[in-house]
Amino acid sequence: MFTKKGILIVISGPSGAGKGTICKELLKKHNLHLSISATTRTPREGEVHGENYFFLSREEFLNKVEENDFIEYAEVYGNLYGTPKSGVQQMLDDGKDVILEIDIQGALKVKDNVSDGVFIFILPPSMEELKQRIIKRGSETPESLMTRFKSAYQEINYVSKYNYAVVNDTVESAVEKIESILVAEKCRVDRMKEKILDSKEGLIHDQLYD
Amino acid sequence: MFTKKGILIVISGPSGAGKGTICKELLKKHNLHLSISATTRTPREGEVHGENYFFLSREEFLNKVEENDFIEYAEVYGNLYGTPKSGVQQMLDDGKDVILEIDIQGALKVKDNVSDGVFIFILPPSMEELKQRIIKRGSETPESLMTRFKSAYQEINYVSKYNYAVVNDTVESAVEKIESILVAEKCRVDRMKEKILDSKEGLIHDQLYD
Repeated sequence: MFTKKGILIVISGPSGAGKGTICKELLKKHNLHLSISATTRTPREGEVHGENYFFLSREEFLNKVEENDFIEYAEVYGNLYGTPKSGVQQMLDDGKDVILEIDIQGALKVKDNVSDGVFIFILPPSMEELKQRIIKRGSETPESLMTRFKSAYQEINYVSKYNYAVVNDTVESAVEKIESILVAEKCRVDRMKEKILDSKEGLIHDQLYD
Repeated sequence: MFTKKGILIVISGPSGAGKGTICKELLKKHNLHLSISATTRTPREGEVHGENYFFLSREEFLNKVEENDFIEYAEVYGNLYGTPKSGVQQMLDDGKDVILEIDIQGALKVKDNVSDGVFIFILPPSMEELKQRIIKRGSETPESLMTRFKSAYQEINYVSKYNYAVVNDTVESAVEKIESILVAEKCRVDRMKEKILDSKEGLIHDQLYD
């Protein structure tokens, strides 16, 4: 039997594009494992430590940085965010597919470290829709709202660094597209060397002359 | 409005792997356009000129070669096979997705000319199964059967030149995988520049300050 390495699926895009909802649906429907990020930001209502994020103090976070315990970390809007290294690598080695919801800065750094990850950029159907979503979330001051809009415009340029772009017009259609991307990625020749070997093994054991 | 270029989907693999049945199913279910090859081989029972192949005499075929009318052509088991150039290019330019069922030699030549095609290698579930399928087809002499088996073993090495490999264990599951590959390919960043532009356009027209 062959050990198959898991796939790291990176769901990224401007804030408010709907990354979180999409990841939640994917996790409900598929045997995927969530990489839980660490952050120094204040939990939003209902967010649980160890489930949504590992909520750390700035000091705790910086200690982990010194211990080289992050695949990437970054400061965004004054808060630190990081992707713990050990957990993700272990799951991938065990053949588990890992999903990582992460902002654009973070995704680009992950790409430097995990080049065979699948990098998916979630696009809002329009910027008007993006604005409505951020407002609806209700967690933004007018100032942070403006900061996010402005950066979203710049951020969309980074889509060219990703493998795939999925427009989040409805959660269902976005999730379906990502499901197709996962099936396709598992058919990529560079990911399925074992199956091809199995197929050739079959020939060796065949009696061609009977 | 943007004109979107169609995708060339190349379905290839060893003979007997089930390329033909898979293509037929895909064409039934999706708005895909078949590229019809030309050949000098004798039609099998039920095969129709202009539908399965353009059946040409050797002289007719070589005339077309001289007129540079093939994307690729090759001699396989003593017969000439070729992919007519004009039809395929026109369909792609019109935004139509074109499906091309072709042997491995041919596919590799197409790849030299159409680098953004999607190259899918159909693998038999096992070589025993491949043998049964070729025997069932009933169109082979014992000698040609042996030739095919031997070359199939060599041919599987070429899978590394392809983008995807799909094991044809059942037609349904193989077709589903190819459907996912098509959805995924349409989400590839390098194929969807227009949609991203649309999304940015949305921002320009938004009133951010209201």
